[in-house]
Amino acid sequence: MIKIFRLKNIISVKDFERKDIEYILDEASKLENIAKSREISEELKGKILGLMFFEPSTRTKMSFETSMKRLSGECIGFENSGSSSVSKGESIADTAKMFEGYCDALVIRHELEGVSKFISDIVDVPVINAGDGAGQHPTQTLLDLYTIKNEIGEIDNLKIALIGDLKFGRTVHSLTHALGLFKNIKIYLISPPELKMPQEVLHDLNKTNVEYKEIGSIEEIIDDVNVLYVTRIQKERFADINDYLKIKGAYIINKNMLEGKDLIIMHPLPRIDEIDTNVDNTKYNKYFTQAANAVPVRMAILKTLIKNNPK
Amino acid sequence: MIKIFRLKNIISVKDFERKDIEYILDEASKLENIAKSREISEELKGKILGLMFFEPSTRTKMSFETSMKRLSGECIGFENSGSSSVSKGESIADTAKMFEGYCDALVIRHELEGVSKFISDIVDVPVINAGDGAGQHPTQTLLDLYTIKNEIGEIDNLKIALIGDLKFGRTVHSLTHALGLFKNIKIYLISPPELKMPQEVLHDLNKTNVEYKEIGSIEEIIDDVNVLYVTRIQKERFADINDYLKIKGAYIINKNMLEGKDLIIMHPLPRIDEIDTNVDNTKYNKYFTQAANAVPVRMAILKTLIKNNPK
Amino acid sequence: MIKIFRLKNIISVKDFERKDIEYILDEASKLENIAKSREISEELKGKILGLMFFEPSTRTKMSFETSMKRLSGECIGFENSGSSSVSKGESIADTAKMFEGYCDALVIRHELEGVSKFISDIVDVPVINAGDGAGQHPTQTLLDLYTIKNEIGEIDNLKIALIGDLKFGRTVHSLTHALGLFKNIKIYLISPPELKMPQEVLHDLNKTNVEYKEIGSIEEIIDDVNVLYVTRIQKERFADINDYLKIKGAYIINKNMLEGKDLIIMHPLPRIDEIDTNVDNTKYNKYFTQAANAVPVRMAILKTLIKNNPK
Repeated sequence: MIKIFRLKNIISVKDFERKDIEYILDEASKLENIAKSREISEELKGKILGLMFFEPSTRTKMSFETSMKRLSGECIGFENSGSSSVSKGESIADTAKMFEGYCDALVIRHELEGVSKFISDIVDVPVINAGDGAGQHPTQTLLDLYTIKNEIGEIDNLKIALIGDLKFGRTVHSLTHALGLFKNIKIYLISPPELKMPQEVLHDLNKTNVEYKEIGSIEEIIDDVNVLYVTRIQKERFADINDYLKIKGAYIINKNMLEGKDLIIMHPLPRIDEIDTNVDNTKYNKYFTQAANAVPVRMAILKTLIKNNPK
Repeated sequence: MIKIFRLKNIISVKDFERKDIEYILDEASKLENIAKSREISEELKGKILGLMFFEPSTRTKMSFETSMKRLSGECIGFENSGSSSVSKGESIADTAKMFEGYCDALVIRHELEGVSKFISDIVDVPVINAGDGAGQHPTQTLLDLYTIKNEIGEIDNLKIALIGDLKFGRTVHSLTHALGLFKNIKIYLISPPELKMPQEVLHDLNKTNVEYKEIGSIEEIIDDVNVLYVTRIQKERFADINDYLKIKGAYIINKNMLEGKDLIIMHPLPRIDEIDTNVDNTKYNKYFTQAANAVPVRMAILKTLIKNNPK
Repeated sequence: MIKIFRLKNIISVKDFERKDIEYILDEASKLENIAKSREISEELKGKILGLMFFEPSTRTKMSFETSMKRLSGECIGFENSGSSSVSKGESIADTAKMFEGYCDALVIRHELEGVSKFISDIVDVPVINAGDGAGQHPTQTLLDLYTIKNEIGEIDNLKIALIGDLKFGRTVHSLTHALGLFKNIKIYLISPPELKMPQEVLHDLNKTNVEYKEIGSIEEIIDDVNVLYVTRIQKERFADINDYLKIKGAYIINKNMLEGKDLIIMHPLPRIDEIDTNVDNTKYNKYFTQAANAVPVRMAILKTLIKNNPK
């Protein structure tokens, strides 16, 4: 029986069923093996991916470009709307219609929640949300899950601590939603009071079997988790910089506290100082692997959506 | 008999004969059919196109990139001269000589009329003018004509209204010149007094068989035309903003005024509010098709020039 | 016997032996011949080059892009760190680790000396220094030597005058070091007193057989050299603009002074007015050829490093 991926667009983790995630993760594994054998994939030869990055990005944009090019496809697009027609007052809808005319799929990043969804409603080509506001970042979640599966062996039975800015960090929102689809998951939430996980995310979590708990310090749970998922705390989030400086240290991971533990450290990057560089050369460091996993996972997404929805 | 395209460069519509236009339109049709059959064209494999966009652009630059990549070619270039050698004081001539060393053809956009011509005189590779000042934008005209031919059936016998900023809009200047090469053409010119078609364009038109007339309102001719070609009126063109606000409404197209008419709406885009979005989902809307037509037409231009003038 | 290129990275000319230079120059010749036969090289198909240009560049970045694409490879990257993660406070090391995850080789330009070396120590993929501060620009030197060899016939026995800003010009520093590896070389150094060749470069030169002399004017040596290598004098280098205006004329090359001489003019470009444009159409002008030579030489470098160090 041939499995077909069910979704036309990748907009929100809330649209996923467990089998959708498994489909992409399997596909990513296959593509990673092909890459290791030095075979050149021509799956998307002649196809064009449109990158509409209204908000700047390095990692996400470049990994989408790399992924498309590793499949022999090509990219066009912009980063920042400054030099685009948008700066002449063009509506996002019109810009998207133009891209639709040129491309086989679109990747959108925008500072406002819902823009990807809006565009997916008006164009016929597949749309991928590469981050919208404090909302969703579903492809990041897929590569996070891919990393967890590769490093821990499975996603079910995971015990994970989410650390840092849980309020504005879209990656932890997306990841939390996705974990709701797996079995026997335990999530510890560790953040400054100002940056707690939003109520609506917890509300959704209550409908799942996930056990979660807000915790005061990393020390309390460090012996009980498989994964410490660390995120950046932006000092701009604090009205008073002194509040930031006071709490900052409590959310920093260093080598000493990890000694003898059986866990991995993940981080969506960029990192500022939440993880001491003395962790970089330890076995705990999986954040660079996680970053590199963006390529097979985004290759899997691009291949799946574009092949399933030829223009 | 093998037809060969006569021109080495695409600088101005004034250089065209009717057969040149027909050659490109035929070629574009063929390439569009190939694309529809999902065949991948490798016509320009290994070739590099240089994009020298001294002035920003979205649509034009991206459609050239898309077109080159759909032919398996590649692009290099810059947008805005800010980050280029130009900002170190390098002359345009030297920048062009550098690009000549790297590329198989050059696409130039510049705020000054005549820059493309100047560059075409000093380099050996084909040069394409992608808009110079208020002067010419010949590849836009070719895709406009392609759209007219596809939608109306022929270019001869066309009755078209050009609406909006006829003074600074280079697309309407180029298009007017091109229509002078066809039979039994009627052009209605509709613009605020401040933004009338320049005398030199009308002067050239007088040497052709085209009938043209300056008209006060869209209503007068709406029953008599095949095409309403609408352009953006930039409020910056008015010394007094109130003058702009007063006249603005007279040049806006909406669904109601189109009911029952036998015509299409074209627009070089980006649009601000000259065409109400309630027109988007009607049969009159051909402006998105027109935008998408940029790809087969620019593919035809790139293929023809680069194949005829191998480096 | 198969010759293997000895170096994994191209960081500094000081790492070169004569045979390393000869290897790249031979390879560049072969690739140039293949290009002339219109054969399409697929040597780097499926490979991705990462361009990390922390400092803007036109010529260097575009010629690397062109070279990679002429070998059927692809590029990703950024120019200026403004829109990259670097602007979010990410360390260069983390940015480099990210690129390592995506790419088969990295090209680095940075305003600080030593950044390329630092990155080459922390990533596994080959690293190419595309200019670091006033330090080194080794790939420019390779294309300079390629030009000298092609135009003069050999590099040994060269008599060359280096003219202009010898203090801050990294291309002349790199070239001087490289010439130390060849036989019977004579270098004349001609610069304003403020912009003399740094003592440490002369110190290194003293360990070689190169004869060098600081000279007051071009006239003194114009009958004795094969090459006038001219560089840009940036007026920003002078505390007092009047000092600049006073000396400026003494370092300008024009057609009259070249009449009857047996030499070529080279310049790393961009040029401002150090070479009068009346030289452009003379046989002396080899600076545009030199610029175009960037492509075969950088193709040779990319092919050699990436093929020798597959990811």
